Amino acid sequence: MYPRARYSSLPLLQSRFDVSILPIVPAIDNIPADVRTRATNIRLVAFDVDGTLTDGRLWMTEDGREIKAFHVHDGLGIKRLRERGVEIALISARISRAVELRAEQLGIDHVYQGKQDKLGCLEDILRASGIPPEQACYVGDDLPDLPCMRICGLAVAVANARPEVAAVAHWQTSAEGGRGAAREVCDFICAALALQQVPT
Amino acid sequence: MYPRARYSSLPLLQSRFDVSILPIVPAIDNIPADVRTRATNIRLVAFDVDGTLTDGRLWMTEDGREIKAFHVHDGLGIKRLRERGVEIALISARISRAVELRAEQLGIDHVYQGKQDKLGCLEDILRASGIPPEQACYVGDDLPDLPCMRICGLAVAVANARPEVAAVAHWQTSAEGGRGAAREVCDFICAALALQQVPT
Amino acid sequence: MYPRARYSSLPLLQSRFDVSILPIVPAIDNIPADVRTRATNIRLVAFDVDGTLTDGRLWMTEDGREIKAFHVHDGLGIKRLRERGVEIALISARISRAVELRAEQLGIDHVYQGKQDKLGCLEDILRASGIPPEQACYVGDDLPDLPCMRICGLAVAVANARPEVAAVAHWQTSAEGGRGAAREVCDFICAALALQQVPT
Amino acid sequence: MYPRARYSSLPLLQSRFDVSILPIVPAIDNIPADVRTRATNIRLVAFDVDGTLTDGRLWMTEDGREIKAFHVHDGLGIKRLRERGVEIALISARISRAVELRAEQLGIDHVYQGKQDKLGCLEDILRASGIPPEQACYVGDDLPDLPCMRICGLAVAVANARPEVAAVAHWQTSAEGGRGAAREVCDFICAALALQQVPT
Repeated sequence: MYPRARYSSLPLLQSRFDVSILPIVPAIDNIPADVRTRATNIRLVAFDVDGTLTDGRLWMTEDGREIKAFHVHDGLGIKRLRERGVEIALISARISRAVELRAEQLGIDHVYQGKQDKLGCLEDILRASGIPPEQACYVGDDLPDLPCMRICGLAVAVANARPEVAAVAHWQTSAEGGRGAAREVCDFICAALALQQVPT
Repeated sequence: MYPRARYSSLPLLQSRFDVSILPIVPAIDNIPADVRTRATNIRLVAFDVDGTLTDGRLWMTEDGREIKAFHVHDGLGIKRLRERGVEIALISARISRAVELRAEQLGIDHVYQGKQDKLGCLEDILRASGIPPEQACYVGDDLPDLPCMRICGLAVAVANARPEVAAVAHWQTSAEGGRGAAREVCDFICAALALQQVPT
Repeated sequence: MYPRARYSSLPLLQSRFDVSILPIVPAIDNIPADVRTRATNIRLVAFDVDGTLTDGRLWMTEDGREIKAFHVHDGLGIKRLRERGVEIALISARISRAVELRAEQLGIDHVYQGKQDKLGCLEDILRASGIPPEQACYVGDDLPDLPCMRICGLAVAVANARPEVAAVAHWQTSAEGGRGAAREVCDFICAALALQQVPT
Repeated sequence: MYPRARYSSLPLLQSRFDVSILPIVPAIDNIPADVRTRATNIRLVAFDVDGTLTDGRLWMTEDGREIKAFHVHDGLGIKRLRERGVEIALISARISRAVELRAEQLGIDHVYQGKQDKLGCLEDILRASGIPPEQACYVGDDLPDLPCMRICGLAVAVANARPEVAAVAHWQTSAEGGRGAAREVCDFICAALALQQVPT
């Protein structure tokens, strides 16, 4: 049922219950070789929140609360990437309890909000985890994400990223933030890691 | 007023009050013959929730509540299908009171949430209802839906389904989840059942 | 600044404060002559709610409340049409306090919810108002709207209407429900009424 | 990494922490020369709210509260423009506490709601600030915005503006209201101001 040429080298495990080992079918062939190489080294993925895990909209209620729209596809991608041992971080300049709750649902360990200095925050995480920047991926959409993107081994801009951000990214997703962009990144890295582990 | 060629064999009842017997005009001619045959046997339709009855977005409020967006067109389709004797089930991996409430509005009997093992859940429903898998339709959008789709007589992927899911489906809707995909499935099965009942 | 050819016969009043007399620029030339003739007689416009004044989505919260998304453009269109003496009615099969509140904001007199028999409801309104069906316009999107559309002088389907509804409409808007469809109807009828009043 | 030809004359400062001085890359070359000239004089930008800072949708809850969706990209654009000394005003015909809260987040000084006479309101702001109308920019989407747009040095219509509004605007954004339109205006004016300050 799956395209054979592409997956013949992948272990095609089938389990009734464990979704985490279902095969992934991203269009990895369309991704430039150097970007794929960068992806094979990734041990941590840090996501911006607004515009990256959401479409950038802030629903504001009359009593001063914010509502954010996350996507269920992104959630599954993040979970599966975590299960393969990749660490996940969220770094946001804003502060919202909704982010905390979503992070809890997905079991994300590194959640930092209210960070004007995103780069300093990322550097702290990397230092504590003992992961060099070349093995980190940063996914963002706007100017405050640029400093982090400049130091990471794999800098990804979402489809709706500002032009300045798309310009410095190694790769840009075809899906928009909050509409599957994070899933695309996670599936791509999962596939790159899997390909790397298979002897050719 | 309706295209004649296509509906000449359908009883064109007109009632002021009973919407359930209004004719349905899906583009059934465009659907492959084997998919139509599969549809004529359906006695139960099971829907995934997030991404299938919604567009996959999870609006999260600061006080930790989730908001989901269902579609009124889907609701009418489900109601009409139920009125023709087809059983409806909702199977979700997540848990949300919003799903319960929407199911109550539509009079859906089988509502299962928090099910990591969707296949086991579907098998339980089928066993209790005495319906064989070949007479069941499953509508989904993401990896956790694959096991259910593999056993059902009619496996449908919504327009926004992940590529792995679209690849195993017998049919893919043109409408997206939460934007009429369920209506498309219901109207199609209604039309298939009606065509079957009409002597040619 | 406005296209001259089209508006040379319209009184181009300019007021600092009274928005209601600002000129309207709908693409009235693109509308078939018989539809324009129907519009010149309209004294009441009845709108369906879900899918017509909204895009059909029902946001449901965990505590069982519904949220609907109306559009500010539609609101201004309805207000302006009322100011020209046209009566406005909302007829919904569902019940939601959000509809009541939106109707209050716009000063709509006829608000009927929980109406399974929309046609009976519309006939009551017309009888009470002394307006014959030929001078009424009905705007809808789904099967329950068909009976009302069949008796009205001007039956309008929104862009996202089900195909059965589009098939019986005299005219279909280019804007979707909840995204300017009602504004398009109101502007069109305003323009038709204005053209009628101007001696040529 | 940035297109050189276009930015060679701009000071390309790089700071780890201060996002406000990151370079801006709007497609300023595509904007007509007279519009650019108008932008170089701007000292105040006044925004309509519904349809301009939002996409015009009013989410209404059952307990009568309104929810509006602002965009994080617009927020950063407004902040950066303020940091360059340009004053920001919000003028809305409606009243919502959500607007107040969003304005507080962005540090906007002039926030006026419930203003049926938007022109009078704008004139008051300009008089108090000692800014002539030629040095003001107004961004809007619907008929009530027309009077303000007619007196301002730079009148901008968002992509989703009503045709009457687009017709009187000096410039129309390519992004829609609540989806980056305000960011586009802010970035454009920032770039115009920066170009002006650089000796050629």
